Amino acid sequence: MHDRQMLLRSFATARSTSERLCKPLCTEDYVPQPHTDVSPPRWHLAHTTWFFEEFVLKAFAPGYQPFHPQYAFLFNSYYNLVGERTLRHERGGMTRPTVAQVYEYRHSIDARVTALLESCSDATQHELAPILEVGLNHEQQHQELLLADIKSILHQAPLFPAYAEGEAPAADAPPDTWAKFGGGVTRIGHEQGGFAFDNESPAHDVLLQPFKLAHGLVSNAQYLEFMLQGGYRRPELWLSDGWDVAQAQRWDSPLYWHMQNGQRTQFTLYGLRAMDPHAPVTHVSYYEADAYARWAGKRLPTEFEWEHAARQQGGDAAGLPALHPHAHGMHGSVWQWTSSSYAPYPGFRVCQGPLGEYNGKFMVNQQVLRGGSVASAPDHLRVTYRNFWHADKRWQFSGIRLAEDA
Amino acid sequence: MHDRQMLLRSFATARSTSERLCKPLCTEDYVPQPHTDVSPPRWHLAHTTWFFEEFVLKAFAPGYQPFHPQYAFLFNSYYNLVGERTLRHERGGMTRPTVAQVYEYRHSIDARVTALLESCSDATQHELAPILEVGLNHEQQHQELLLADIKSILHQAPLFPAYAEGEAPAADAPPDTWAKFGGGVTRIGHEQGGFAFDNESPAHDVLLQPFKLAHGLVSNAQYLEFMLQGGYRRPELWLSDGWDVAQAQRWDSPLYWHMQNGQRTQFTLYGLRAMDPHAPVTHVSYYEADAYARWAGKRLPTEFEWEHAARQQGGDAAGLPALHPHAHGMHGSVWQWTSSSYAPYPGFRVCQGPLGEYNGKFMVNQQVLRGGSVASAPDHLRVTYRNFWHADKRWQFSGIRLAEDA
Amino acid sequence: MHDRQMLLRSFATARSTSERLCKPLCTEDYVPQPHTDVSPPRWHLAHTTWFFEEFVLKAFAPGYQPFHPQYAFLFNSYYNLVGERTLRHERGGMTRPTVAQVYEYRHSIDARVTALLESCSDATQHELAPILEVGLNHEQQHQELLLADIKSILHQAPLFPAYAEGEAPAADAPPDTWAKFGGGVTRIGHEQGGFAFDNESPAHDVLLQPFKLAHGLVSNAQYLEFMLQGGYRRPELWLSDGWDVAQAQRWDSPLYWHMQNGQRTQFTLYGLRAMDPHAPVTHVSYYEADAYARWAGKRLPTEFEWEHAARQQGGDAAGLPALHPHAHGMHGSVWQWTSSSYAPYPGFRVCQGPLGEYNGKFMVNQQVLRGGSVASAPDHLRVTYRNFWHADKRWQFSGIRLAEDA
Amino acid sequence: MHDRQMLLRSFATARSTSERLCKPLCTEDYVPQPHTDVSPPRWHLAHTTWFFEEFVLKAFAPGYQPFHPQYAFLFNSYYNLVGERTLRHERGGMTRPTVAQVYEYRHSIDARVTALLESCSDATQHELAPILEVGLNHEQQHQELLLADIKSILHQAPLFPAYAEGEAPAADAPPDTWAKFGGGVTRIGHEQGGFAFDNESPAHDVLLQPFKLAHGLVSNAQYLEFMLQGGYRRPELWLSDGWDVAQAQRWDSPLYWHMQNGQRTQFTLYGLRAMDPHAPVTHVSYYEADAYARWAGKRLPTEFEWEHAARQQGGDAAGLPALHPHAHGMHGSVWQWTSSSYAPYPGFRVCQGPLGEYNGKFMVNQQVLRGGSVASAPDHLRVTYRNFWHADKRWQFSGIRLAEDA
Repeated sequence: MHDRQMLLRSFATARSTSERLCKPLCTEDYVPQPHTDVSPPRWHLAHTTWFFEEFVLKAFAPGYQPFHPQYAFLFNSYYNLVGERTLRHERGGMTRPTVAQVYEYRHSIDARVTALLESCSDATQHELAPILEVGLNHEQQHQELLLADIKSILHQAPLFPAYAEGEAPAADAPPDTWAKFGGGVTRIGHEQGGFAFDNESPAHDVLLQPFKLAHGLVSNAQYLEFMLQGGYRRPELWLSDGWDVAQAQRWDSPLYWHMQNGQRTQFTLYGLRAMDPHAPVTHVSYYEADAYARWAGKRLPTEFEWEHAARQQGGDAAGLPALHPHAHGMHGSVWQWTSSSYAPYPGFRVCQGPLGEYNGKFMVNQQVLRGGSVASAPDHLRVTYRNFWHADKRWQFSGIRLAEDA
Repeated sequence: MHDRQMLLRSFATARSTSERLCKPLCTEDYVPQPHTDVSPPRWHLAHTTWFFEEFVLKAFAPGYQPFHPQYAFLFNSYYNLVGERTLRHERGGMTRPTVAQVYEYRHSIDARVTALLESCSDATQHELAPILEVGLNHEQQHQELLLADIKSILHQAPLFPAYAEGEAPAADAPPDTWAKFGGGVTRIGHEQGGFAFDNESPAHDVLLQPFKLAHGLVSNAQYLEFMLQGGYRRPELWLSDGWDVAQAQRWDSPLYWHMQNGQRTQFTLYGLRAMDPHAPVTHVSYYEADAYARWAGKRLPTEFEWEHAARQQGGDAAGLPALHPHAHGMHGSVWQWTSSSYAPYPGFRVCQGPLGEYNGKFMVNQQVLRGGSVASAPDHLRVTYRNFWHADKRWQFSGIRLAEDA
Repeated sequence: MHDRQMLLRSFATARSTSERLCKPLCTEDYVPQPHTDVSPPRWHLAHTTWFFEEFVLKAFAPGYQPFHPQYAFLFNSYYNLVGERTLRHERGGMTRPTVAQVYEYRHSIDARVTALLESCSDATQHELAPILEVGLNHEQQHQELLLADIKSILHQAPLFPAYAEGEAPAADAPPDTWAKFGGGVTRIGHEQGGFAFDNESPAHDVLLQPFKLAHGLVSNAQYLEFMLQGGYRRPELWLSDGWDVAQAQRWDSPLYWHMQNGQRTQFTLYGLRAMDPHAPVTHVSYYEADAYARWAGKRLPTEFEWEHAARQQGGDAAGLPALHPHAHGMHGSVWQWTSSSYAPYPGFRVCQGPLGEYNGKFMVNQQVLRGGSVASAPDHLRVTYRNFWHADKRWQFSGIRLAEDA
Repeated sequence: MHDRQMLLRSFATARSTSERLCKPLCTEDYVPQPHTDVSPPRWHLAHTTWFFEEFVLKAFAPGYQPFHPQYAFLFNSYYNLVGERTLRHERGGMTRPTVAQVYEYRHSIDARVTALLESCSDATQHELAPILEVGLNHEQQHQELLLADIKSILHQAPLFPAYAEGEAPAADAPPDTWAKFGGGVTRIGHEQGGFAFDNESPAHDVLLQPFKLAHGLVSNAQYLEFMLQGGYRRPELWLSDGWDVAQAQRWDSPLYWHMQNGQRTQFTLYGLRAMDPHAPVTHVSYYEADAYARWAGKRLPTEFEWEHAARQQGGDAAGLPALHPHAHGMHGSVWQWTSSSYAPYPGFRVCQGPLGEYNGKFMVNQQVLRGGSVASAPDHLRVTYRNFWHADKRWQFSGIRLAEDA
């Protein structure tokens, strides 16, 4: 990817994609922060821009002056080493800079990064390329968050506005077949070649027991059966922490499910829709995924089982349908909770400097999710990609694939 | 006011004033709710409109259909009897209807109310007039809230945007003279003639002891002296509840005061400005007003002393300068905390029906403020007007006038 | 009371009464603090003792050394001026000094105070007497709190242990007659003669409108009728703050009411008992008292109406039965919420020094209660006595007397 | 262990040990619950007894009647399947049954279990033995909790009472040598023979990379160096969740460290003592252990590395001093945080029935600790034993052993 033209193209694509995702929004939608996990779209657009200003322009553009003296403070996120920053839960209160000013900020930075890229020496380009690559992957991650956050924001309005026109085609019932895998030592993690985040390395060997993995994701209809059989009222199905959360927050269905005039509906990016029975269940927490699996007499896969299976399958969609989520298309694809807590791979070293804050500091109290979702950029994901959330989070596009011992 | 043309003019004026107050806002400013007490400007504009739709059009316009089936739910406030409503603390999450749609709603209702007023029978007009009057006074109350809420919203953004161009002229030092009043039985509350809220009635006799009232409001410089002498660190000056709040929220100055490069500044509707030493201190809670008075060896007036003094003075500004706030002009005028808790006058009866929810239900745990502020509509206030807030509130334009026993 | 022998007798009586009240407790009962308002009996016994150590012995006993160097820190309450103190909500965590050590502390201080009183000069006695008087009245106040706190502590154990043997005799139905009072100027507050707290002064004139006061207190049966008619589900009956508290805490009856096998029971100092329909309702908040009054088409009296009526009646129990609570005997007597918020009387001055912290600092956000309760020392109360609690408190023996305009 | 006499002896020993641990307490110490994690000693003594009543007597003693009809409700803990239970955070409010009654309960159940054991058929004994074994190990776990909870309770009283007489001998400085281990496949978990909890099974193979393990535990002096070099003020050393907790709770040292007159002290079971520089640091959270390791340029071991090393070493104390904690004796021995989150071993199955609730439901959001502590019963622990706590817990005897890649 380090070819100059390719860099320019990748940069332009990633940057314009974020803006394209925000096209359906009205100005008001850019502002709120319904809960602490959600960031206002205004903030996503500015923060990803700040990344390029801070780590590219400030470092490489001769004589660069900040676009605005306070933006670094406003749009820094968790980079404690780079200076003060606004608290995460206060992002929704700010109305300035306005949306138009944020776009102006984006376009100014884009122009300057492009100019820098076009004019810099080969040596500079060589140094710059890996940082740009992090920045682009970082922006793709925020694109995924952006969709989940937009959904959450639109859901606040009892008018249930739609983000997208039209509607997804009805899903087919998932297959009820299973793929079988022998145990043994398998290679896990990112080897050389292509971009990967630091948490995907070092590649290393892991010893697996024989296991099976469901070809299909758990569907809404299957999950509803769990609900109808008292899934949310039976403590013996739940992890203790999960039971406490479910009681405190009065969970009795996945997030975004509603009853309207006796019919089950789901709030989707297309607005409020009748629940599609065959589509993968989504917006479930790890606790719900785990309780469902226990109820079904199965378990969730480890992240190593998942990666091993994905590698085995290669590109052969017939062999293991739906392991990669895009087999399902836009409507139903979801991240898949694994039973693995998010931890460093053996030999993991945090990079030096502010970019090193990136991943390691989150390696506790979270569960790994594998796969990808409707909201993921297709070229962003890999078989080694590790997503991670706290076990109680539900506003992401997260679902369930079952496993069992073979 | 019940003359038809006058009604139409009053309606047009009140309605356009709310919109004029929002002129300086950008769309983003209409959305957030920085804390529970604040309502988004979007909501004020829609809620005041809903009042006319609910109590005028729905009741009097033949065959009236709601503008939107869900607006009554979204923009009802505390009228528990009129149906379900959104919770107060959730007003800031909603981005729809958009600002443009809210204006459309306003204009549609305005047109229909105007048409109704122009065409209805005299009998209907007679019935409608007092409701309209409540609606207009209600709207004027929201105009006052609107300014305080806008100030709070703009203050969230560390960029300190200005609401208004220019700047207030520097204030003169307040006089340090006192007006003296003999005690005795005095008449308190609204007698017939002109509009008044239900909480201003019934008029009744109150027995006062002789007292004195300061001609001037406490200034920023005077309040600063209290601060410099340890006012915020001396528990013996404070009410117990006030001390707890001040500690928990780490108060050490009025709201909106900042230190910038060693200089004291205040966030104002004109942006961040050097503190004007002679302007009345504002954005203080009852607890701070009470602590200041104790420190100064004085006390706060009762609401009856205040009203008695205001009546005595009549329109004679020389006799008692600054008792009516508008003597100070736009910059410095503030509501004045009284030591009276908000309670019903003897013989007070709540009106029947939803309009009766208006005032009585707040008559506990609040302190009465008298006077008016920079944010008050001049023709909205009267000598009997009772404003009221919880003792810890500071986002309103509230200040201090001292009293003492004579 | 300033006669030396009388002082000694009063001291001995007050001190032994506190210990007598704790007789039925087992050691464990002295420790917990079920909620912030409740203090452990251990703490009451030690704190009242600390008062005499701090203000009598330390000030008057030549060469006095503290009983223990840390007790002043541990058992000081809200006297911010006297030094550091433990936070109110942490009183329940401490297990040392033990109960036995606290009694040792009491007896040591008692002996020294007695010795001082017996041996001091007349001049010292003269100076000491008013402080001792405050201390004794302070101890009597804590005796009242002690009973309410013990009830709260015993109620924590699902075993519903009884504090006292036996059971109160069934109450008679309250009379449904009313006493009528003309309006006019009346004298309120404590004049010379006998002890009174600072908040009962200065005596002053108040102007009353004609009013009526119920001879009887509202009974359990009457209150149950309010409940059965949806009292806890009708927002229009409630103050807004009260409705919020009632919803948040899921109130649907007075505190300590239970349903057991379909029968209504009350937790009492005699254990769990069938509800006595004619006994005065107790353990209701101001919000409930106010809602009940509104439902009944009446109102609560002001504290001035109450005091005026109590003075009128003199000692004539036939004239106004049950206005003084002891007419009801141990079982049913309750404090009576008034519609008056707790505020200083005109001309009120806080005493200088730490004893001045006593009352003035609580004069906001509380409602005055008048009368007295089963838990009050009979000789402790007067017609001018002002009790006060926040409007949401229910663990005290608080009930309802209705009033209305005449 | 299934020999009848041995069972009786084990039962008598475990039961009397719990009571011996409580000998130094006064009655008051049995009551409080300073924070949710702590249970009152009263509760530990009763709950462990309830276990034998519920799972032994109720199931096996012919015609058994409960000792008290409500004790099952009061002293059940997390066994949701066995019926209602008191909430964990309310255990400290209850004063009844009294301490004496709880001992009476213990002795009655002990006598009946002993009688049952002595008289039952061999078949019954055979069925009963494994349940009894769980009960005894359960009691030993509670003995460990008991000591940590007692320490926490005694620490509430600013008097810093001592639990034990005397004082531990000063510790020697820990060795600064490391043990080296080659990688490869190793056996983890409990094989047959002897008691183990369900979470120690199934035994299975794990693939390790070569690693090194410190012979010594991190000492107070070493940890102090981390503090002095800004350990608590440098976010880059901390996990993100840990930094948030540390800020919110204002951590700046391990729990129980105090400054007194400029000297560092520690609250210990012997009261407040000068900090022993060579003793292992204890009462640190996982977050602190992890931050310390990062600061030291090392890491924490995985639980598999720990177990592998412990197996290698066998009983040879020279080979790896202090890996088993009791090498340090009473004073300094601590549990050692591992970087492994608490998860089921491959093939783990929860047992059916209420005893199955035991371990599996806690397998999320917790970190495994290995080793044992001063508070552990020496015969209770094994090389496969897995302790686990949430990453922010500090009231247990938890410390740090470092590891690094070889």
